[in-house]
Amino acid sequence: MKLAIAQLNPTIGDLIGNAQQILEAATTAASEGVRLLLTPELSLCGYPPRDLLLNPSFVESMATTLVHLAKQLPPSLAVLVGTLTPNPNAHVAGGKPLFNSMALLEAGKIEAIFHKRLLPTYDVFDENRYFEPGLHSNSFTLIAQSPIKIGVTICEDLWNDEEFWGKRNYHVNPITDLAQQGVDFVVNLSASPYSLGKQKLREAMLQHSAKRYQQPILYANQVGGNDDLIFDGCSVGFNRAGEAICRARAFEADLVIVDFNEETRDFVPSKVTPVLASDDEEIWLALVLGVRDYARKCGFKKVVIGLSGGIDSSLVAAIATAALGSENVVGVLMPSPYSSDHSIRDALELAENLGITTHTIPIGELMQGYDRTLETLFAETEFGIAEENIQSRIRGNLLMAIANKFGYLLLSTGNKSEMAVGYCTLYGDMNGGLAAIADVPKTRVYSLCEWLNSRGVGSGEGVEFSQFTIGNSPKEIIPTNILTKAPSAELKPNQFDQDSLPPYDILDDILHRLIHHHQSAVQIIEGGHDPAVVNKVLRLVARAEFKRRQAPPGLKITDRAFGTGWRMPIANRWVGETLNRSR
Amino acid sequence: MKLAIAQLNPTIGDLIGNAQQILEAATTAASEGVRLLLTPELSLCGYPPRDLLLNPSFVESMATTLVHLAKQLPPSLAVLVGTLTPNPNAHVAGGKPLFNSMALLEAGKIEAIFHKRLLPTYDVFDENRYFEPGLHSNSFTLIAQSPIKIGVTICEDLWNDEEFWGKRNYHVNPITDLAQQGVDFVVNLSASPYSLGKQKLREAMLQHSAKRYQQPILYANQVGGNDDLIFDGCSVGFNRAGEAICRARAFEADLVIVDFNEETRDFVPSKVTPVLASDDEEIWLALVLGVRDYARKCGFKKVVIGLSGGIDSSLVAAIATAALGSENVVGVLMPSPYSSDHSIRDALELAENLGITTHTIPIGELMQGYDRTLETLFAETEFGIAEENIQSRIRGNLLMAIANKFGYLLLSTGNKSEMAVGYCTLYGDMNGGLAAIADVPKTRVYSLCEWLNSRGVGSGEGVEFSQFTIGNSPKEIIPTNILTKAPSAELKPNQFDQDSLPPYDILDDILHRLIHHHQSAVQIIEGGHDPAVVNKVLRLVARAEFKRRQAPPGLKITDRAFGTGWRMPIANRWVGETLNRSR
Repeated sequence: MKLAIAQLNPTIGDLIGNAQQILEAATTAASEGVRLLLTPELSLCGYPPRDLLLNPSFVESMATTLVHLAKQLPPSLAVLVGTLTPNPNAHVAGGKPLFNSMALLEAGKIEAIFHKRLLPTYDVFDENRYFEPGLHSNSFTLIAQSPIKIGVTICEDLWNDEEFWGKRNYHVNPITDLAQQGVDFVVNLSASPYSLGKQKLREAMLQHSAKRYQQPILYANQVGGNDDLIFDGCSVGFNRAGEAICRARAFEADLVIVDFNEETRDFVPSKVTPVLASDDEEIWLALVLGVRDYARKCGFKKVVIGLSGGIDSSLVAAIATAALGSENVVGVLMPSPYSSDHSIRDALELAENLGITTHTIPIGELMQGYDRTLETLFAETEFGIAEENIQSRIRGNLLMAIANKFGYLLLSTGNKSEMAVGYCTLYGDMNGGLAAIADVPKTRVYSLCEWLNSRGVGSGEGVEFSQFTIGNSPKEIIPTNILTKAPSAELKPNQFDQDSLPPYDILDDILHRLIHHHQSAVQIIEGGHDPAVVNKVLRLVARAEFKRRQAPPGLKITDRAFGTGWRMPIANRWVGETLNRSR
Repeated sequence: MKLAIAQLNPTIGDLIGNAQQILEAATTAASEGVRLLLTPELSLCGYPPRDLLLNPSFVESMATTLVHLAKQLPPSLAVLVGTLTPNPNAHVAGGKPLFNSMALLEAGKIEAIFHKRLLPTYDVFDENRYFEPGLHSNSFTLIAQSPIKIGVTICEDLWNDEEFWGKRNYHVNPITDLAQQGVDFVVNLSASPYSLGKQKLREAMLQHSAKRYQQPILYANQVGGNDDLIFDGCSVGFNRAGEAICRARAFEADLVIVDFNEETRDFVPSKVTPVLASDDEEIWLALVLGVRDYARKCGFKKVVIGLSGGIDSSLVAAIATAALGSENVVGVLMPSPYSSDHSIRDALELAENLGITTHTIPIGELMQGYDRTLETLFAETEFGIAEENIQSRIRGNLLMAIANKFGYLLLSTGNKSEMAVGYCTLYGDMNGGLAAIADVPKTRVYSLCEWLNSRGVGSGEGVEFSQFTIGNSPKEIIPTNILTKAPSAELKPNQFDQDSLPPYDILDDILHRLIHHHQSAVQIIEGGHDPAVVNKVLRLVARAEFKRRQAPPGLKITDRAFGTGWRMPIANRWVGETLNRSR
């Protein structure tokens, strides 16, 4: 029996467009003789729909669209479609009003409905906010040459293998229940967001469960960027022995067909797309997809980026070029009297390498204008943070003026290290509709640029992404001087990041311990860091919360990003206590 | 037996300071012969601690501080303190790692621990993100002249009376369990945030439960502002007959002592602070507390506000003056060539009425500076939104420069109607550390100002709030012309809000139906609105999501505010479908 995984890229709330995608995949699959088509979790509305779920008319539209879709599908195949269903007992028995469900559509109608049992409520996930957990084990039987019993799980349902994790996350374990029922294989319909190394983790876990329960698993994931979240796809199948029998492409829509052998009761190996070669490649592809989909799904064709000649804006410009094409990226240089010659030279060289248009708009006159306007009020004060921020905010205002005038999307260029310690200006360089590298630590910004250059220079390959290739020239993509010069905000003469911050390798290690491992000051110091530096960094991180709260959505590429999954009070005295305890 | 409610105003994460507050209340209560002191939910860390709960060192510090506090408390009384406790079975049985608990401290030690059973996960609440629900009914016995059995509930535990709500919200109902155990009375330890009319709802619900179960209830609430949330206090007690026997002050810390009569097994009536007289007074006091606490808890003494001569900035200036004193409020007038004479006159008159300092900084030169700087790039384009936004962003930059230079907190002045439809400039007038009236619809802005004037003018009372009184003069506080002139952003000649938007009474009704009642376009039109207007408003609301995402925290005064409880995708096509269906 043939099955197919439709690795789809839905747009949130676009029910008709998403149904159309499902229909197209089903039509292709039917023409290949497929009997069962899998689509991702909540494939009808896209994941995550968030507070759209609170609108009754949204829930009703989902139901109407599902019924309509069922009638349009080819009659020869069954399709699992992710949708919402109302919880009929909520009023009487208590509980949330909806289930996160999969509908089995066949022969023009809804044959069965299965409810997600484990509801992630951590990090970026809020499923307990909307959904009631399903209480029953989910399976159905398809008749091919023989009856084939298929277990149905939805995303998190498979993430509770206590043997794999060394602990239980939820009280129940759906795959154990299915194993006891003796299903032929388990399907998992997911919308599992990307973070670095996530696919390795997923595959290790799925492989472990397949082997442990002697149960083949077919895993269908969503692909595409939805605001801050990037879904990587990488749908995958494992046979009873825990061997990968298929893998869909990373960061692209795909349709993968696999064969279930009714004799051996196992999957037959099929197209297995190789995993990506390096962390840098993974992150690069994630960011390119994130920028492209945010622009596309918000209705923007072109983006504008402030080019400082520094490494952050250079990387963002390269990502945008790969995402949207060089003709759709506009770089703006805004030199001040504090800008060094190399800043302009480096930015122009980068733009030339990328083939993007630039405009140069000096800000000196506006700086003088602000000085004069504030002359009386600021009389007898020293040049300081206020004046530095004015420059950044002049640039922010100019970039937004260009974005507003021509209908461009402004991409902000701050990295995660800066966002963490607040080394950025709110309403200045933080301006933008999307913060492309806000979850990329500075040390990773360097390694991404080096990887990009290693791919782009004379390899004959360039850095390819779908229809577009950058690089593939005898020159590097990111000019060497940008990679080698000392980072500087250039907001006053001879200013360098390292005057205010520890070296980035040290800073990033402290931040990683704090943000990803929830380490205390004491633990970070025990990890080998200078107590004075640790205390300073922790204080900076706490004090910058008000800036992060007002930042644009940032593409998430790690397991803990500032954004929807970071929920920290602003008026908060905890940092002080942490510091006291470390003394 | 005497009991006391300590209606405390904790600072999030300030464990030592919060413990000190509890200790002081306990010392006072002990001197009055109190046997049991109640403190609010999570009184040791303040509510909501949000992602601080993910730090193991935070959880450990809570435990240490609790043990230390127990030893310091007067030996004559027992104290219920809100704290965290680890879930010892999480690893083996699954579930979240923490409980939201109350510790009963007595005789220098922790006598008992009770876990919250119903965990709110909706609107601004994320308790399933952190906590495992308690499974057991909570009670303990105190020996006075007789043994007194006391049922313990934590906030949401009392919010599931299906008779009152007409439906169940949760599967279990803790108060029913307690009634079956025959407790003498129930205490509820809460951190229940303010919204308009919330206290009426709370009291109706508590009264209903007291009568239904023939069970006295003593309800202790947190008070104070924590970021966007304002806790109103209003702790209250009901006797067996459902009569209010005590009520603490609204929007202020308080200590209320009540007597439990061991003969009648019921509470004796005590000090019952009257409820507030009007919705406007309620909202006014909420906003004053919200501004004061945000400033104080973030470490600011003074605030700066851009004064346009319009009603929004006038109201914010009045709130700030009541919150912090006129000597701590700085108004900045930034007239442009498009500003009318009355704008400046009205703003200066307001400042004089409030007794606040002003600075006047014309922006004409900077506008010309931007025009010249962008001359080439914008050649042959028309004056439009880009140019309007530049003006707003010049003002935003100047205000931030002043805030940065002098260490002031900038208050933004946008109202909820503007925030809803995006009639505001991101990085311009939206700038600020706190959006004081972001949850106040424009029609309510008017009624608050009228209420303020009615209180302030010649009543001999002024508008009092703790140490400070404004008004109480023969003049009105908000100049009449500000109340009567047509609202205008004054970003181009003869511009009025109503050129772009429907009249505010119509706009606010549409928005209320959309935001608070989740009505579809069809339903709003059926409610009597023009389809073209409804479609336009819905489209504007959807398109402004990117602005709201980057807005400062806004003080929440309604049951659905833009902010932590509003989680909407940006790249989202749902609005289109709503509109299609309405045609």
